[in-house]
Amino acid sequence: MADDKKLVEAITSMEDDFAQWYTDVVKKAELIDYTSVKGCMVIKPDGYAIWELIQRQLDDRFKATGVKNVYLPMFIPESLLQKEKDHVEGFAPEVAWVTQGGLEPLQERLCVRPTSETLFCDYYSNVVHSYRDLPQVCNQWCSVVRWEKTTRPFLRSREFLWQEGHTAHATAEEAEERTIQMLNVYADFCENVLAIPVIKGRKTDKEKFAGAVATYTIEALMHDGKALQSGTSHNFGDGFARAFGIQYASKDNKLEYVHQTSWGMTTRLIGAIIMVHGDNSGLVLPPRIAPVQVAIIPIQQKKEGVLETANALKDRLVNAGCRVKVDDTDKSPGWKFSEQEMRGIPLRIEIGPRDIEAGKAIIARRDNGEKKEILLENLESEITAMLDTIQVEMLERARAHREAHTYTAKNYDEFLDIINNKPGFVKAMWCGDQACEDKIKEDAQATSRCMPFVQDNLSDKCVCCGKPAKAMVYWGRAY
Amino acid sequence: MADDKKLVEAITSMEDDFAQWYTDVVKKAELIDYTSVKGCMVIKPDGYAIWELIQRQLDDRFKATGVKNVYLPMFIPESLLQKEKDHVEGFAPEVAWVTQGGLEPLQERLCVRPTSETLFCDYYSNVVHSYRDLPQVCNQWCSVVRWEKTTRPFLRSREFLWQEGHTAHATAEEAEERTIQMLNVYADFCENVLAIPVIKGRKTDKEKFAGAVATYTIEALMHDGKALQSGTSHNFGDGFARAFGIQYASKDNKLEYVHQTSWGMTTRLIGAIIMVHGDNSGLVLPPRIAPVQVAIIPIQQKKEGVLETANALKDRLVNAGCRVKVDDTDKSPGWKFSEQEMRGIPLRIEIGPRDIEAGKAIIARRDNGEKKEILLENLESEITAMLDTIQVEMLERARAHREAHTYTAKNYDEFLDIINNKPGFVKAMWCGDQACEDKIKEDAQATSRCMPFVQDNLSDKCVCCGKPAKAMVYWGRAY
Repeated sequence: MADDKKLVEAITSMEDDFAQWYTDVVKKAELIDYTSVKGCMVIKPDGYAIWELIQRQLDDRFKATGVKNVYLPMFIPESLLQKEKDHVEGFAPEVAWVTQGGLEPLQERLCVRPTSETLFCDYYSNVVHSYRDLPQVCNQWCSVVRWEKTTRPFLRSREFLWQEGHTAHATAEEAEERTIQMLNVYADFCENVLAIPVIKGRKTDKEKFAGAVATYTIEALMHDGKALQSGTSHNFGDGFARAFGIQYASKDNKLEYVHQTSWGMTTRLIGAIIMVHGDNSGLVLPPRIAPVQVAIIPIQQKKEGVLETANALKDRLVNAGCRVKVDDTDKSPGWKFSEQEMRGIPLRIEIGPRDIEAGKAIIARRDNGEKKEILLENLESEITAMLDTIQVEMLERARAHREAHTYTAKNYDEFLDIINNKPGFVKAMWCGDQACEDKIKEDAQATSRCMPFVQDNLSDKCVCCGKPAKAMVYWGRAY
Repeated sequence: MADDKKLVEAITSMEDDFAQWYTDVVKKAELIDYTSVKGCMVIKPDGYAIWELIQRQLDDRFKATGVKNVYLPMFIPESLLQKEKDHVEGFAPEVAWVTQGGLEPLQERLCVRPTSETLFCDYYSNVVHSYRDLPQVCNQWCSVVRWEKTTRPFLRSREFLWQEGHTAHATAEEAEERTIQMLNVYADFCENVLAIPVIKGRKTDKEKFAGAVATYTIEALMHDGKALQSGTSHNFGDGFARAFGIQYASKDNKLEYVHQTSWGMTTRLIGAIIMVHGDNSGLVLPPRIAPVQVAIIPIQQKKEGVLETANALKDRLVNAGCRVKVDDTDKSPGWKFSEQEMRGIPLRIEIGPRDIEAGKAIIARRDNGEKKEILLENLESEITAMLDTIQVEMLERARAHREAHTYTAKNYDEFLDIINNKPGFVKAMWCGDQACEDKIKEDAQATSRCMPFVQDNLSDKCVCCGKPAKAMVYWGRAY
C-alpha cells in the first residue's frame, strides 16, 4: 500500500495552500506539462480531452444560433493593429512581435494575434457591401498570445486556446441583442455543462474591453473565495466600423456603418472546473465534461471471470452512451481508487468475484464519496441516473458555496472587514466614479467584478465615497 | 437573366488557364478571401465547413487507432530547433521569428512552429521513463507557418491548418507499423471520403522529410495532370530520440532509445478536392465532404404552397441524415442553379407548383449534370441512394482519369516526350542515384513522386542513366 500513500500525500491540502494545491492537481491529474517555452504549456491528453468536450458542446450551441466557423490569419500587421486607438493601447504592450520571415527582416513587423477584432474588421470591410450581406456571424477556434509576466496553467498563460466570435449587424439593437444572446449561451453552458453557477452582469468602464462600448461578463466564485471571469461578450457599437470603414448600402440605398460584437471563452474554463469542484483528493469532474465518466475497477482481477465481467459491463455502459474505462493494469485496487479520484472520474464501479456471484456491484461517487450497492441487471439505468444526479448536485453544491460566500456591505468599514476576512463576493453600492474603484483596489486589492443584471437596492449611497449610488456592484479579489 | 451570365462568365475555363480557373473557383465558391497579410488567407464559412468535415471524419479514424489529441506551444526556442541537425537545416530557412515579447526584446528568439517534432521530443523526454509509458500516440490540430516566397490558396500558404501526429514506440518494428498504419488511414480517407484515388509509396532520400529515416506518401493526380502530395507519414528511427535524449527503462531494466514517427495532412486537401473534381461551372464536392449535400430550389416560389413544400422536403431529408438547404432568396431559379453549381452542392431538387400537384420533383446531379424525375413519396430513399452513387462514381471517374493519364517510359527519349507532351504520371525505372533525379528535374522539371508499394518490373535499367534499376518510380510535375 506504499504506492497508495505516495499518490495521496503528494497533494498539498487546499486549506494549507490553495495555489500549491491547484498546481499539484493540474500536474498529478496529468492535465498539463511545463515546456521549454516560458509561460506556455503542453495540454496533455487528459486535459485536452476536457477541452474537446467543451469545444464540441459549446460549438453545437453556437451553431444553433446561426454562428459559422472561419479561420483568419494568426498575424496582424502593426499598421492594422493601430487603426482603433483604444484597442491598440490595450493590447500593444503585451503582444509578441515577428520581425523576421525566413532569412529576411520584415518590412513591417507582425504581431501574433492577442485577439482578432482588427483582422475581422479588415475581412468584413472586404465582404460587407449591402444590407444583404448582413448579419455576419462568425467564430473561430484558435490560440492567441499575450506576453504575460506572471503565468499559471490554464488561468494565465502566454499562449492559450479559445474561441472568438465576431459579428457585424445592420443596427445597434441587433448588435446588443447578439451580445446578450451569447452571454446567455455562455451562462447556460457554464451552469448546465460545467456545473458552475455564474453571475451575469456588465463591466464598469474601467474593466471593459479595449475598444468596446459595453462589456458583459459571467463571474464565477472559486473554492477559495476568489472570483474568476469566465466569459465575456462585447458590444462595439460602430466604433471599429468607423475606424475600418465597414459600411453597407441600406434598403433605401444609404451608406451606413455596421454595429459589431465579439465574445470569447478560453481554456481558463478548465482552471475554473478545477477550482470550483476539486478537493483534497484531486480533480472532480462534472459528468458532462468528464472524458471518462465511469471507471470500472476489478477486484481480484486474476480470478476467473472478473476481467471478462468488467469488460462486459463496460460494453453495456458504452452502448448506453457512457464514456467508460476498465482499469486492468497490474496496480493494487487501492492505488486505482486513488488514481480514479485524482483524475476526477465521476463514478467508480468496484466488481469482484463475490459481487459477480451475487449479481451486484458497488458504485462510489467521486463528488461526495457515497457508496451504493446496485443490481447488475439494473446497471444502465442506475449509472445514467446517478450521473445525472451528480451533475445536478454538483451545480447545487457550487451554488450553495457561492451563496454562503456572498456578503453585503453597507459602509466602507464593513466592506474592508469582509474583503480582508471573508473570501467571497461582496455586494455593495457604487457611485459610478472610477476614483472609488481605484481606491478600493488600493485599499483592498479588490476589483469590481460586474454590475449584475439583477440589481438590489442595498442603500442610496456609494459604499466608498458616500455620494449617491448608481448601481449595485459585485466586488471581489480575482484571478 | 443578366445575373446568371455574369456569374458563369466570371470563371476562366480550365482548358484555357488551369491556374486562373483554380483561383476563380476558390474566390467565386467563397472558400477563401485574401488578407492584408501576404501569403495568409481567410478561410470563409463555406471553406471552413469543408475543413470541419475533414477534421471530424479524420479525427474519428485517428481515435479508432488509439490516437489522443494534445496541444503544444506554437513557439520553438531557437536552441530547441537546432537539436536535430537535418531537421534544422530543412526548416530554419523558412520560419518566422519572434524577437520581441511585449515591450522587451527576447533573450532567445522563438520561431513560430513550422512543424512540431522538436516540441514533441522535448515533451516525450519529460514524460517517457519506462516501457510502461510507451507507446505515446499523440496528435494535434493547429496551424503552422512556413515563410514561402510564392503562395497559392490552400496549396501553399505562409500559414496553413493541419494535423500532426507524433508517436514514440519501444521498438523499430512498432514505429514502422504505425508509420504504415497512418499512411493507410490517409489513403482510405482520401478514397472513401474525398473520392480521390491515391498512389501509396515511399519517397526517395532526396524528397524525404528533414530528419526522417523514411517518408511515405500518398500522391494524387489533379485534373491538369500535375501531382499533389496529399499526406505524408515519417519514420524517424531513433534519430530524434538520440538528439533529444528520449530513453526508457525496458522490462529487463536497460536504457533504450524510443523510435518515433510523425504524420500530417493539411488544408491543402481542399485544393486537391477542387482540382480533382471541379469543372468549368465551379466546385464539385463529393457528398461525404459537402457542407450542403442537397439544395432545394423552389420554382415560382411565390405561389401558394411552394415554399412550405420545399421546407417540408428539407425537414424530411434532415431527418434522414442529409445536410440540406432551401434557397428561398429573391433571385431567379436560373441564378440559383448557377450558384448551386458554383458551390459544388452534389444534388439539386427543383420543385414547383406542377411538381407538387403531380407528387414529383426533378433532381439534378452536380457531378455529371444528369436529371431525373422522382416521386416525392420516395424522397428519402431516392436522395440517399443518389448521394451514395455520386460518391462512388466520383471516385471511379477520378480513378479512370488517373489511369488514362498514367504512362510508362522505357527509355529517356520516351520519358521526356511524355513529360513534355502528356501531363500525368510517368512510371519508369530508377537506379537509386540522386544524380538521375537531379538530371530529370533539370531536363523535365519533374520530380520523383514516390516508389510505389506496388512495383512493376518495367525493365532492368534506369530510365535516365541506363545503369541497373533498383525500383520503379512514379514521376511527375507537382504542386
